[in-house]
Amino acid sequence: MWRLAFPMSSSIEKHPAFEPQDPDYRVRVENSFARQKAMTTLKMKLTRIGPGEIELMFPYQEELTQQHGFIHAGIVATALDSACGYAAFSLMPPRAAVLTIEFKTNLLAPAQGDYFRVVGRVIKPGRTITVCQAEAFAHRQSESRLVASMTATLMALFDREGIQD
Amino acid sequence: MWRLAFPMSSSIEKHPAFEPQDPDYRVRVENSFARQKAMTTLKMKLTRIGPGEIELMFPYQEELTQQHGFIHAGIVATALDSACGYAAFSLMPPRAAVLTIEFKTNLLAPAQGDYFRVVGRVIKPGRTITVCQAEAFAHRQSESRLVASMTATLMALFDREGIQD
Amino acid sequence: MWRLAFPMSSSIEKHPAFEPQDPDYRVRVENSFARQKAMTTLKMKLTRIGPGEIELMFPYQEELTQQHGFIHAGIVATALDSACGYAAFSLMPPRAAVLTIEFKTNLLAPAQGDYFRVVGRVIKPGRTITVCQAEAFAHRQSESRLVASMTATLMALFDREGIQD
Amino acid sequence: MWRLAFPMSSSIEKHPAFEPQDPDYRVRVENSFARQKAMTTLKMKLTRIGPGEIELMFPYQEELTQQHGFIHAGIVATALDSACGYAAFSLMPPRAAVLTIEFKTNLLAPAQGDYFRVVGRVIKPGRTITVCQAEAFAHRQSESRLVASMTATLMALFDREGIQD
Repeated sequence: MWRLAFPMSSSIEKHPAFEPQDPDYRVRVENSFARQKAMTTLKMKLTRIGPGEIELMFPYQEELTQQHGFIHAGIVATALDSACGYAAFSLMPPRAAVLTIEFKTNLLAPAQGDYFRVVGRVIKPGRTITVCQAEAFAHRQSESRLVASMTATLMALFDREGIQD
Repeated sequence: MWRLAFPMSSSIEKHPAFEPQDPDYRVRVENSFARQKAMTTLKMKLTRIGPGEIELMFPYQEELTQQHGFIHAGIVATALDSACGYAAFSLMPPRAAVLTIEFKTNLLAPAQGDYFRVVGRVIKPGRTITVCQAEAFAHRQSESRLVASMTATLMALFDREGIQD
Repeated sequence: MWRLAFPMSSSIEKHPAFEPQDPDYRVRVENSFARQKAMTTLKMKLTRIGPGEIELMFPYQEELTQQHGFIHAGIVATALDSACGYAAFSLMPPRAAVLTIEFKTNLLAPAQGDYFRVVGRVIKPGRTITVCQAEAFAHRQSESRLVASMTATLMALFDREGIQD
Repeated sequence: MWRLAFPMSSSIEKHPAFEPQDPDYRVRVENSFARQKAMTTLKMKLTRIGPGEIELMFPYQEELTQQHGFIHAGIVATALDSACGYAAFSLMPPRAAVLTIEFKTNLLAPAQGDYFRVVGRVIKPGRTITVCQAEAFAHRQSESRLVASMTATLMALFDREGIQD
């Protein structure tokens, strides 16, 4: 993981692309996601699967709001956590199950809009521990706004009884 | 907030009890909570309201699970965030609205059980910024287990257009 | 880890006492701490070692301040991280090395005072992952004040080349 | 802050450039940084100041290591916190003082190397609350490696007695 030193530019530092260990990672992500009943209940859909990068979307739903009519921060965190979890999972070997150890979310703007788009990506893959970041955007007509960010730590589990992804 | 120094005991440090600024804080918490449609949808109920301390409960619901059949970490975070938010809100003056700035959750054990109990409490109140901690317990028959913890930072808003608690 | 359900009291939930796996955990903690050159440089001293609980102290030092004359938040975090790390380490088996995966700190009040006391304790031990919390108190004459809190996730490493506690 | 919706590309989402409110923000950052005695003690130097973006560097120093000979995680956090704090401060109006409310750090690789470069940037500026992210890179000869990341929440203070940036 030692790489050529970045030039001292003011641009955002680029992270490398990742090689999946499992050529069938897309199918594995789709199948596991389909078993997350919370995703169906909350109308969250997988819209993009890449190696170490996942995109989800869900519509505004009045029944998921807090007292000001915005989507509840915990519901936004649910989408961010799933995006992080599957971004990590996409780089894991076939037999691994993925577990969230912890996550941290900043709520940057009210979660108002027609629909929400959440992008999660791996920052640091590892045999046991993977760290991901995710961002949630509110979309309204042709505009979008960053409403929340997350950093999450995920763990790969192997041969743990009763846990299967 | 300078207090007598704690003795060097091995016990958990005790935090002081809080005085609510609003004698009607219970009614204010109940009314705001009742407007959180997400709480109704997720079957989360307020079970205790104290000054700077809130307890919520919700039953296991298969439709809120992740791929292993445990309650989704984001749903647990939703309950923890509401407990923190209303613990902070209970100590705020009557005209304040409460907003979550950020939260951090550790998932300590699988969220399995018959029902879940979540306790949030203020650890540092402030005019603008309040910091809370919360814990989620899974209950099964007569036993319980700590399954998640949260630290959250909340902000009091005054006279912000369109935001009313 | 399933325990008798807590009564619905308003008291802070009690966590169980821990059994060290290594009867010589105190010596192991002291020896590893003595090898942390940063602790010597920052004048941080171990003042209590228990199973899953560590106390450190350090004096106010003008050369560790930020622009307002308070101890720099990162220096407070250094003490909190060491307290969490050795609280976790105290419960690990003899051959383990301990590594911090992540930590999160809330700065609750300016770090002003004559000296600082930091208490770290395990809230969830595990074979691989241990979660700790810590609090930092500023002391002045006979009074103290909570100035910062931390939640940290630690990992036990075994037989990792070049890493030895 | 509503912007044109991002195309569904797989690239990292771009954040907008920021306009400083104070044309003399560089001088203000330099002067405040110079008053952080901890930065001098830890040999941390400002190497770039932009609107909402700060770069610091510091050399490897044996006296700042933990038990494995890596730079202590808290020292890395000290640099990350200063980078976040001054990134936020660079966008604040002339009379503001900046205070860290909380930060969260992930330790991604051992902090080994000849010197360390830390880049902090604003993710979401605000009148009261600003959110920043920072990354720390270890450099050795012509190579670099991401060793830690931070998300921090900063607060602007106005006319607070005894607090001056």
